[in-house]
Amino acid sequence: MRTALYAGNRSIVLGEADPVPPGPGEVQIAVAYTGICGTDLHILHGAMDRRVAVPQVIGHEMAGRIAAVGDGVAGHPIGQPVTVMPLAWCGDCPACRAGHRHICHRLRFVGIDSPGSMQQRWTVPAGLVVPLPPDLPLARGALVEPTAVAVHDVRRAGLAAGEAAVVLGGGPVGMLIALVARSRDAQVAVVEPDPLRRKVAVDLGLMAVDPGGPDLVAWTDEWTGGAGAAVVFEVSGTAAAITTATQLLAVRGRLVVVGIHSEPRAVDLHRFFWRELTMIGARVYDRDDYDTAIDLIHSGLLPVDALISHIEPLNRAADAFAALERRGATMKILLDCAGDAS
Amino acid sequence: MRTALYAGNRSIVLGEADPVPPGPGEVQIAVAYTGICGTDLHILHGAMDRRVAVPQVIGHEMAGRIAAVGDGVAGHPIGQPVTVMPLAWCGDCPACRAGHRHICHRLRFVGIDSPGSMQQRWTVPAGLVVPLPPDLPLARGALVEPTAVAVHDVRRAGLAAGEAAVVLGGGPVGMLIALVARSRDAQVAVVEPDPLRRKVAVDLGLMAVDPGGPDLVAWTDEWTGGAGAAVVFEVSGTAAAITTATQLLAVRGRLVVVGIHSEPRAVDLHRFFWRELTMIGARVYDRDDYDTAIDLIHSGLLPVDALISHIEPLNRAADAFAALERRGATMKILLDCAGDAS
Repeated sequence: MRTALYAGNRSIVLGEADPVPPGPGEVQIAVAYTGICGTDLHILHGAMDRRVAVPQVIGHEMAGRIAAVGDGVAGHPIGQPVTVMPLAWCGDCPACRAGHRHICHRLRFVGIDSPGSMQQRWTVPAGLVVPLPPDLPLARGALVEPTAVAVHDVRRAGLAAGEAAVVLGGGPVGMLIALVARSRDAQVAVVEPDPLRRKVAVDLGLMAVDPGGPDLVAWTDEWTGGAGAAVVFEVSGTAAAITTATQLLAVRGRLVVVGIHSEPRAVDLHRFFWRELTMIGARVYDRDDYDTAIDLIHSGLLPVDALISHIEPLNRAADAFAALERRGATMKILLDCAGDAS
Repeated sequence: MRTALYAGNRSIVLGEADPVPPGPGEVQIAVAYTGICGTDLHILHGAMDRRVAVPQVIGHEMAGRIAAVGDGVAGHPIGQPVTVMPLAWCGDCPACRAGHRHICHRLRFVGIDSPGSMQQRWTVPAGLVVPLPPDLPLARGALVEPTAVAVHDVRRAGLAAGEAAVVLGGGPVGMLIALVARSRDAQVAVVEPDPLRRKVAVDLGLMAVDPGGPDLVAWTDEWTGGAGAAVVFEVSGTAAAITTATQLLAVRGRLVVVGIHSEPRAVDLHRFFWRELTMIGARVYDRDDYDTAIDLIHSGLLPVDALISHIEPLNRAADAFAALERRGATMKILLDCAGDAS
């Protein structure tokens, strides 16, 4: 079968491999689509070389159908449409014992710490499999994982109907957060420097603001009647966005840190004190978030098709990564892993 | 009557003034005791010169008895023991309208933005007066205001029985937070470099740790079975403590920012993401916190007498400030404002 591997040296290469037969408690999935995630780009850039065993098949945003099951697996008939929640927790650390298994001290992320779904057949523990509604197009099913991230972020924010939320960063996750927030009847503005991405937001009926345009604090004050934003989702990962977020928040406002900040950031703690702000870290998701994400996509409340910029055959994986690095209007690219993948 | 004033140039001077007769809606209080707060030290150091009209009577931690009432004041008989909640909100800004009047956009703090209680007679709006139990010694009543700060901080933390809480900084507010946390059946450790202050903590039955001693992260890990602290109260105002707090927290741990950080601080946002930490700003208190503080002190659950290092006559205010600046075992100093204040 055809695979796409991260091979180190900022390269994605194609490979051929025998499908892994499912062992006891495992399933083999015929992968239909795998989305390329920001994390996959981080891997390409070498930022996760300590965790990725080069060469390695990567990818974790996917949908497909059960192709084979190992001994002891029940409830997954051949052909069942599924996605995967790619978290492997230990069950025994203080985080797991406290009920926070998704942030297990020894969490292994499938597709980073073990092989991923950019291949035609993917074998994973059956416990990670999440069935999809039979009538859900599998391309949309591949958006469940990033949507679950957004659901988790919005849940961590405690976002309430009518509240004003600002999303700093209009990439796929930022846009999904905005859409999930809107589905909660919040008022949402997406702040994004790229005009093409702002157009995607506007086409989705979202407010979109250029951070290089009008003064963002004054704009938010006017929008919110002088109160400020109830919630800011920081999805850009930039130092400047942390400063901006702190300035935009209303009293008792919540800053949800979604973006990856690899260095410590200067934070105005006096503002946190003065306005009684809260900063909330949010990481991945738990099963409830998956279930909610599936419901939101299946019901049509989240028009995720609009975020799928291209579908490319798995054979063109390297080109798809290159297109994402050029950014612009490119939001989510799916790799078509089915058939001959050509 | 005798007064003590901040006169600029890092000086506290004594003054003589006529008591202010209470106008409509005001009361005049015969001040029994006024505690010296860290904020008063900030004022002495000139850090709040933009807000304080020099020369100005300062002070806001107090207890006394109603001496006179203005027109239209009911419910405050002469001789009633009282303290004051020194917050004046506008009632009309977005914060007030959202129910967060204690962090009103235009909040005025009595004793900073207007004259305080380091005088024999203090005239304030009747709406700020909080009656004290008749059998509560007034020296303890002067501890209600800082105790309300601690109650508010613990409430903002959402601290639950059995949780492990670390207090970084063993001054009066840190110690009160530790005592309030213990009254909630939390496990509490106070981290404080000064051995004399650590002894005060130990004498109160609290765990006390020297941050210059054993590795604090390892110590906390061992204490909590590898989990980390559920809550850290940052009361020291130092940059290093923010880093420490982030390292000590368990997954889903809460960092309550109590100390004043006048400059932006480097915060490890990746740790916030990785462990889903929360940082919570906490400022002053609302009336519920006052009521709880009075209950805790009145019931004896909070042995606040142990935090009163000295009671000095108002005439010795400048010496009392100087003693506090030497720190060490000196926790709270009360100024005796009654009688001839000599």
